Amino acid sequence: MSYYQQHRSEFVEGLRAFLRIPSVSTLPEHSSDVRRAAEFVREELRTAGMSFAELIEGKGHPLVYAEWMNAPGKPTILFYGHYDVQPADPLEEWKSPPFEPEIRGQDIFARGSSDDKGQTYIQIKAVEGLLKSTGKLPVNVKFLIEGEEETGGEHIEEYVRTRPPRLKADAAVICDTEMFAPGLPTICIGLRGIVYGELVVEGANHDLHSGVYGGAAPNPIQAIAQILCALKDSNGHISIPGFYDRVIPPDPQEREAWARLPFDETEYTQKEMGAAELVGEPEVPLFERVWARPTLEVHGIRGGFTGEGAKTVIPARAVAKVSTRLVADQRPEEAAQQLKNAVKAACPRGVRAEFRVIHSAAPSLTNPDNRFIHAAAQAMNQVFGKETVFIRSGGSIPIVGVFDQYLGIPSVMMGFGLPDDNLHAPNEKFHLPNFFRGIESVALYLEMLGR
Amino acid sequence: MSYYQQHRSEFVEGLRAFLRIPSVSTLPEHSSDVRRAAEFVREELRTAGMSFAELIEGKGHPLVYAEWMNAPGKPTILFYGHYDVQPADPLEEWKSPPFEPEIRGQDIFARGSSDDKGQTYIQIKAVEGLLKSTGKLPVNVKFLIEGEEETGGEHIEEYVRTRPPRLKADAAVICDTEMFAPGLPTICIGLRGIVYGELVVEGANHDLHSGVYGGAAPNPIQAIAQILCALKDSNGHISIPGFYDRVIPPDPQEREAWARLPFDETEYTQKEMGAAELVGEPEVPLFERVWARPTLEVHGIRGGFTGEGAKTVIPARAVAKVSTRLVADQRPEEAAQQLKNAVKAACPRGVRAEFRVIHSAAPSLTNPDNRFIHAAAQAMNQVFGKETVFIRSGGSIPIVGVFDQYLGIPSVMMGFGLPDDNLHAPNEKFHLPNFFRGIESVALYLEMLGR
Repeated sequence: MSYYQQHRSEFVEGLRAFLRIPSVSTLPEHSSDVRRAAEFVREELRTAGMSFAELIEGKGHPLVYAEWMNAPGKPTILFYGHYDVQPADPLEEWKSPPFEPEIRGQDIFARGSSDDKGQTYIQIKAVEGLLKSTGKLPVNVKFLIEGEEETGGEHIEEYVRTRPPRLKADAAVICDTEMFAPGLPTICIGLRGIVYGELVVEGANHDLHSGVYGGAAPNPIQAIAQILCALKDSNGHISIPGFYDRVIPPDPQEREAWARLPFDETEYTQKEMGAAELVGEPEVPLFERVWARPTLEVHGIRGGFTGEGAKTVIPARAVAKVSTRLVADQRPEEAAQQLKNAVKAACPRGVRAEFRVIHSAAPSLTNPDNRFIHAAAQAMNQVFGKETVFIRSGGSIPIVGVFDQYLGIPSVMMGFGLPDDNLHAPNEKFHLPNFFRGIESVALYLEMLGR
Repeated sequence: MSYYQQHRSEFVEGLRAFLRIPSVSTLPEHSSDVRRAAEFVREELRTAGMSFAELIEGKGHPLVYAEWMNAPGKPTILFYGHYDVQPADPLEEWKSPPFEPEIRGQDIFARGSSDDKGQTYIQIKAVEGLLKSTGKLPVNVKFLIEGEEETGGEHIEEYVRTRPPRLKADAAVICDTEMFAPGLPTICIGLRGIVYGELVVEGANHDLHSGVYGGAAPNPIQAIAQILCALKDSNGHISIPGFYDRVIPPDPQEREAWARLPFDETEYTQKEMGAAELVGEPEVPLFERVWARPTLEVHGIRGGFTGEGAKTVIPARAVAKVSTRLVADQRPEEAAQQLKNAVKAACPRGVRAEFRVIHSAAPSLTNPDNRFIHAAAQAMNQVFGKETVFIRSGGSIPIVGVFDQYLGIPSVMMGFGLPDDNLHAPNEKFHLPNFFRGIESVALYLEMLGR
C-alpha cells in the first residue's frame, strides 16, 4: 500500500482545514481570511518537504512561493493554483454551510472544494508523498500559488511580468480545470480569455416620478436593455463590429475528436444546467460554442426600486456587470475597445453610457504535441485506466497566457473537477475519488518526467 | 371684509395642528397617528357645522364621512381628500422638522402641507365659512376623506364599490393636484391610469458559470433586455399589439390650449428634471407625451451579481418592476392582458417570462363641457384674477376612476399645489396665498352651483 493510499484520511482532514478558511478574495471583510489561507498553503508546503516556502507580498493578496531544486539535469515544473474562492452567496441555497465542509456520499461540499483549493491541495500532497516516501523528487519543482484568481487581481501577473529568475521552468502544471466526464482523464489545451466590466448608464440627476415625467424622461434601465440588445442579437451572435475577425476556427481533427466525446445533451441541459433548452448560435456545434467562440454575458444588473410592492420611479442610474469571453487569437485590449465603442454607438438619446473594464485576460491555445502534455496524458491514463481526452474550456485562466507570454513555457492543464461540481454556485463540491486519483496522477507524472 | 379674510390666522393655526400629526399611513408605527388625523378631520367637520361627521371603520385606516343635505333641489357635491401623508425620510434633508410646520416667506413647510392636508383643509374651511357666515350651504355637501391614499390601501375603493346610498352625488370635487404655474388657476381634466407589476424571467434552475456555459446557457437578464426592447422601441413607441387602439387623441382645441401654456422647456428639462434632453415619441408634443399617451417604464431591475468587483455568473433569475401608464379609453384589465401576451410573445428561447400585476387603476378624462367644471373654472378665475387653464396630469389618482365607475359622477380637480411643492420629497411646502385663495375659490364655487 503506497503512501498515498495510507494517508487518505489525513489528506481529507487537511483539505477540510483549508476549506474552512473563508478566503473570499473579492470581499474586503475577508482579507484577513485570505491571508490566513496563504499562510496555510505556505505551512503545508513546508510540511510537505519543499526546500523553502514563503509569501511574496505586493499590491493585493500575497503569492505563495516554494521550491525544491535538487534534481540537477532534470526538468523543472512550476505548479500553479489559487487559494482564494468565490463569494458563497446566495447562502440560503447551500445544503450545508459553505465554509463547514461536509462529506455526503463520495463528495466533499464546500466553497472552493473543486475551485481551486481541492486541486491545489492535490499538487501539494503529490509532492509530499514523493518527498516523504523517497526523500526526493524526480524533477525540480516550484510552486506559485495565488490569492486573487477570483478577483482578477494583478499581483501574480505583475510579478511574472518581471520575469524573476526563480520562476525559470520548463512547463507549468495547472490543476484548475475539469474532467470531461466522471472517470475520463482529461487535459485542457485551450481556454477562453475575458474582458469583464461594468456598464454604467446615467439619465437625469435624480429619480423622477414616472407619472409626471413618463414619456419625456430618459430611463437608464430601458437604455441598458437597448444597449445589451445592440451588443448581441437574439441568436447569440455578438453584433460588435470586427469582433469575430481574429477568431481561429478549430481544425477538422479537433472538431472530430469533440464529436466523439461521450455526451448526453439532454442530461447536460436538463440535469447539469437545469435548463429547458440550450441557446446560442444555432449553426455552431455546442462544444465549439462554449470552447471556441466568443460570447457576451450579463452577470448582474441593478437599478431603481427593487423592494416589495410598487414605487413609480424612473431611476437616475442603472449598472450592469457585463463580460465577453474571448478565443484565440482575439486580444483583450482590442476587444475591450471594440466593446466600449459599441456601447457608445448603441447609447440612446438622453443618457450617458460607459463600459469600464474591471479585468481582462488573454485566451490561450496550446499545441498538444509536446512531451509535458504527452507525459500528463500517459500518467492520467495509467491511474484512471482510460484513454486521456483533449478538450478546451470555456472559462478563463489568465495565468496561462501570462506564463506563455513572459516565461515562454507551456501550461499543462490536468483537471480533476467534474462538470457538476457547482463552481461559483451554491453547493460546490469535489469528488473525493478524483481527489485521491489526482494526487496519484500528479505524482506519477513527475516520476515519468524524471525518467 | 369677509369671513375668509377675517379668519386667516385661525385657518393657519388649524392647518398647523393638522400638519403636526405624523399620519404616515405606510408605517405601522404611526397607525395611532393616522387614526388621530382621522379624528382631527371628523372634529373639524363637526366644528365647521356639518350635520354629522363620523369615522367609517374597515380593513385599514378609517374613512371620514360627513354630510349637510339641507338644500333640497340643489346639486350634491362630494368632497374627496386624504389625511395620510408620505414618509418623511430622508430626514436630514429637511430644513425644518417635517412635523413641526414652519412658515418661511409665504410658504408653510411640513410633510403633507400640499399633499394633501393643506388641500383637504381648504375644502373644510370653505364649507365652514359659508355655514358660519350664512347658516347654510348653497348646495348639498358630503365629505369622504381617506387615510390610505399614499399606501394604495383599498378601504375606500371597497367602500365605494358597494355603492352606498349615502354617497349619491352629482359631482366629486378633488383638491389633490397642482396649478400649472404660480398664480395660474388650473383644472385637471385627465389622469393617466396604470398597470404596475413585476416581470419575472427564469432560466436555468441555478446560477451557472459563464465560462463553462456561456454560449449555450439562457441568460435571464439578456432575456429581460430583449423583452423590454420588444415592448417599447427606441423612439418610445409601445410595440404591444393593439395597445394604442383605444387611445383617444386630444382634440385640436385641447392641443392648441396646451401649446399656449406658459412653458420654458430648457428650465423644465435641465432644472426641474435634471436631464440632458427630453426623449420619447419624437412626433408627439411634450404635454401630449406625458398627459395623453400611454408609456411603458421600468422602475427597477435586479438579477445576478451586483456587488463590488466581478463574478462571472449567468444568473438563474431576473426581475424588473414595470408599469404602463394608460390614457382614456384604455382599460386596465385589457392592457394588462395585452402586456402579458406581449411578454410571452417576446420571451426568448430557454427562459420562462411572466408579468404579474401588482396594482392597476383606470385612466380618466372628463369632458370639461359640463356645469360642474364650468363653475369651477369661473370661480377660480374670479378669485385668482386670471383665466383658468385646463390641463391633464400624467399621474394616476385611482379614486377618480372609482367614482366614475361606481358612482357615475365626474370629478372636478381643482388643484392648488405648485410644481415645486416637493411632494413625496424633503421640504414639502404649501404656498399660503394658494391656501387662502383655494378656500375662497371653493366657497365661491359652491355659491355659483347654488344659483
